[in-house]
Amino acid sequence: MTRRRIDINSDMGESFGAWQMGDDAAMLRIVSSANVACGFHAGDPDIMAQTFAMARDRNVAVGAHPGFQDLMGFGRRHIPYSVGEIERMVAYQIGAAQAVSQYVGHPITHVKAHGALGRLAQQDKSVARAITNAIKAVDPSLICLAAALGHEQRIAEETGLTVIPEIAADRSYLDSGEMVPRGQKDAVIRDPDVAAWRAVEMVSEGAVVTVTGKRIPTHIGSICVHGDMPEATAIAQAVRNGLEKQGYAIANFIH
Amino acid sequence: MTRRRIDINSDMGESFGAWQMGDDAAMLRIVSSANVACGFHAGDPDIMAQTFAMARDRNVAVGAHPGFQDLMGFGRRHIPYSVGEIERMVAYQIGAAQAVSQYVGHPITHVKAHGALGRLAQQDKSVARAITNAIKAVDPSLICLAAALGHEQRIAEETGLTVIPEIAADRSYLDSGEMVPRGQKDAVIRDPDVAAWRAVEMVSEGAVVTVTGKRIPTHIGSICVHGDMPEATAIAQAVRNGLEKQGYAIANFIH
Amino acid sequence: MTRRRIDINSDMGESFGAWQMGDDAAMLRIVSSANVACGFHAGDPDIMAQTFAMARDRNVAVGAHPGFQDLMGFGRRHIPYSVGEIERMVAYQIGAAQAVSQYVGHPITHVKAHGALGRLAQQDKSVARAITNAIKAVDPSLICLAAALGHEQRIAEETGLTVIPEIAADRSYLDSGEMVPRGQKDAVIRDPDVAAWRAVEMVSEGAVVTVTGKRIPTHIGSICVHGDMPEATAIAQAVRNGLEKQGYAIANFIH
Amino acid sequence: MTRRRIDINSDMGESFGAWQMGDDAAMLRIVSSANVACGFHAGDPDIMAQTFAMARDRNVAVGAHPGFQDLMGFGRRHIPYSVGEIERMVAYQIGAAQAVSQYVGHPITHVKAHGALGRLAQQDKSVARAITNAIKAVDPSLICLAAALGHEQRIAEETGLTVIPEIAADRSYLDSGEMVPRGQKDAVIRDPDVAAWRAVEMVSEGAVVTVTGKRIPTHIGSICVHGDMPEATAIAQAVRNGLEKQGYAIANFIH
Repeated sequence: MTRRRIDINSDMGESFGAWQMGDDAAMLRIVSSANVACGFHAGDPDIMAQTFAMARDRNVAVGAHPGFQDLMGFGRRHIPYSVGEIERMVAYQIGAAQAVSQYVGHPITHVKAHGALGRLAQQDKSVARAITNAIKAVDPSLICLAAALGHEQRIAEETGLTVIPEIAADRSYLDSGEMVPRGQKDAVIRDPDVAAWRAVEMVSEGAVVTVTGKRIPTHIGSICVHGDMPEATAIAQAVRNGLEKQGYAIANFIH
Repeated sequence: MTRRRIDINSDMGESFGAWQMGDDAAMLRIVSSANVACGFHAGDPDIMAQTFAMARDRNVAVGAHPGFQDLMGFGRRHIPYSVGEIERMVAYQIGAAQAVSQYVGHPITHVKAHGALGRLAQQDKSVARAITNAIKAVDPSLICLAAALGHEQRIAEETGLTVIPEIAADRSYLDSGEMVPRGQKDAVIRDPDVAAWRAVEMVSEGAVVTVTGKRIPTHIGSICVHGDMPEATAIAQAVRNGLEKQGYAIANFIH
Repeated sequence: MTRRRIDINSDMGESFGAWQMGDDAAMLRIVSSANVACGFHAGDPDIMAQTFAMARDRNVAVGAHPGFQDLMGFGRRHIPYSVGEIERMVAYQIGAAQAVSQYVGHPITHVKAHGALGRLAQQDKSVARAITNAIKAVDPSLICLAAALGHEQRIAEETGLTVIPEIAADRSYLDSGEMVPRGQKDAVIRDPDVAAWRAVEMVSEGAVVTVTGKRIPTHIGSICVHGDMPEATAIAQAVRNGLEKQGYAIANFIH
Repeated sequence: MTRRRIDINSDMGESFGAWQMGDDAAMLRIVSSANVACGFHAGDPDIMAQTFAMARDRNVAVGAHPGFQDLMGFGRRHIPYSVGEIERMVAYQIGAAQAVSQYVGHPITHVKAHGALGRLAQQDKSVARAITNAIKAVDPSLICLAAALGHEQRIAEETGLTVIPEIAADRSYLDSGEMVPRGQKDAVIRDPDVAAWRAVEMVSEGAVVTVTGKRIPTHIGSICVHGDMPEATAIAQAVRNGLEKQGYAIANFIH
């Protein structure tokens, strides 16, 4: 009997200059895919190269993690970019990540939008289309890692891209299928056991489970664990252990 | 009888946000190759896309023009980067330019280092090697546009890259083969007729002509005209006219 | 009989590094007050010092012109800053302008908010209060130059600051008293004669004249002419000539 | 009998946006003076305000800590600024720090140059003079905190500024009186006991003690402990305890 497979992804390479963010070395021992910041909201060419190299050595798949050009706001602020500007800034960052990952011998295989850009891609069709247009123009073989149930997932599929829908183990969901916004009560789940239990529940049921207990059926191909909380590695490890105990093999979505 | 061919190149896409630099539209009617800033010392994804698109419409070949990450200093200051940092920042910028130029349907075919990075590449073997390593790792089919007689030209050839050696029509040369540093007397030539006459002389003699009248034989494949002086388009036009009058066809080095 | 006095102000010091913006030397021969960018949306310590020095030599009063930290967007994009962040970024920029203007021996005497920050100060009471709080905390003797009829004018008066209400000679007004947003038809007036005629009309009637011809009575202490249009100096000169022909003395609001 | 007094200072407010640096809250319980980054190499208006407010609540004196405009290099790279540019960038940052510290009700009382700027101020007379010129022009009552035995100390005294010479508890010294450059073996002292013992030795002997055991007599008014190492608070606490055991009162140099 073949084991079912599931990917665990995390954002990485989010340091900048002298400033550290997260514990990428620890995370890379747990996850199967890494989304690497491209220098617009975090990271720089050196941090990118280091992160791609560490991922290469641990057999972790890598992707571009484009965001708004906003170091001060870490890409989490809604800066009013036009749809065309978003297309071009995503294309730019994908190309930069392709080149630097190729330089270390471990080319990127996916793209995932970061922060405010990622949120917009779920909520706003034109932004979702801008991101998928950029991917398609630069390299249509790149996989689109997109939030389950959002606009980006659907539009990327229509565009002909391979799409992996993801859920977040450490975030709560509204009945609309959207995440509870950061800053609201219970938006972020910090208890590793709860995160693990939720991840197993959603993956095994094939559904997003909301704050009211509602199930929204959806294909789930990857689970996101965030790397910028103190509890990050504990949560990621608990999610991985929980899924393995249920018979899942943790493996990236590239074959 | 076939006419001899020579390329004329100029730096472009050097605006930033609300700030304009040069008259790219006018220059693109004169030159055969454009070196496009990649967002580190000038430019941004939108300006890059506009510049690539304008060049596409005028049949002008395009290249990445990587520089130091220094908007304030326009990439002209010697910031103490390590050789490894230079490799990775050049790889990053080439990738960004590949993606954005591909996005507008007019892919880059060459790379030319900008400002302080370009000067270092002539004078410092390790920097020259860092740039050629980056080109080779990202895409060895990219042509290296390098100052005639500098380290980069020789090292790029050793590395197996296609190299086009260039001279500057609007700069004076020392007997060492290096340009007279900006800021020194007579470093920059502002008279279009003088620039045109010098370009014709050097191309037809196959030699760099120095301030003392010395000839240093070298292959010359392209002539650089700078775009950030008020006299820029007048100089470029005079250079083009002068060469055409001598029977040269102005054509980029891509066949 | 004493002549009536009116101030003409313009934004200056909006170059950045190698990029030029506007013709400050020409403008400083026309206006009586200069709002100097503080390095967040444009300018840098050197450009600030040069601008303050030029204004000193021409007897033009100077003020801090704080804006959002957004070089790429020239401070014109609505970046979602909190009210507290605005207070502190305005305080910071006022201090920087005080020090650099003091360094050249021509201390600032007013503050005017730039771009998106200025628009918000008219429309949003909490932003208006943040700006006036910052001025009051740093130096309550600084004059607040604020759009006539906006929240900032009223709140600055309540706070006990000296306020100079201004109108723009080169912008159209809605019946609400707000400017027609940039990008809309007829938002910007580019004909020097029209701008001059409008300035005279509004100043002499003591009212904002809207696109429908409606008069909204208000004290007017200064007229703003923008410096970043090609027609800028022609408009400024026409406005000055028009007012002088009607018997106004152009003089800054500092006595 | 009055106890002898000595100041302990540390660099603070060196976080940036989402990135943390050091443990300022812990350090502020140990030191008597804090040098606060001004947004050029680290910090931003919000971090500055928070740091000034924490220092105010703990009765710690504060100063401006100007550096090169180089977030990526944390102000530690020698960027080729002219002397005039240094004067103006220091003036700018002092003004910004004055305004934000005034805004939180705890005005700065000293200035200390950061990183590469601080090193240059010891080694290069023209840079030392640029810094002291800036302090004098903006506010001659500000105290200049300068490395003992360097050019800045002497030139600031000649200029008429109040100068406090400092030594670093966690750095080794060459026989020239300069610090062993970072990156060289034994440049940085990481053992709290060694740092404490060295601080006591130098303060009680009134001399810099070099790597060869040489004594260079000098007045010492303050001891610097760096905040950006993991061992930072342990070193600072050990230094404080060591000095108090020898009968010194830890107190800032403001009376």
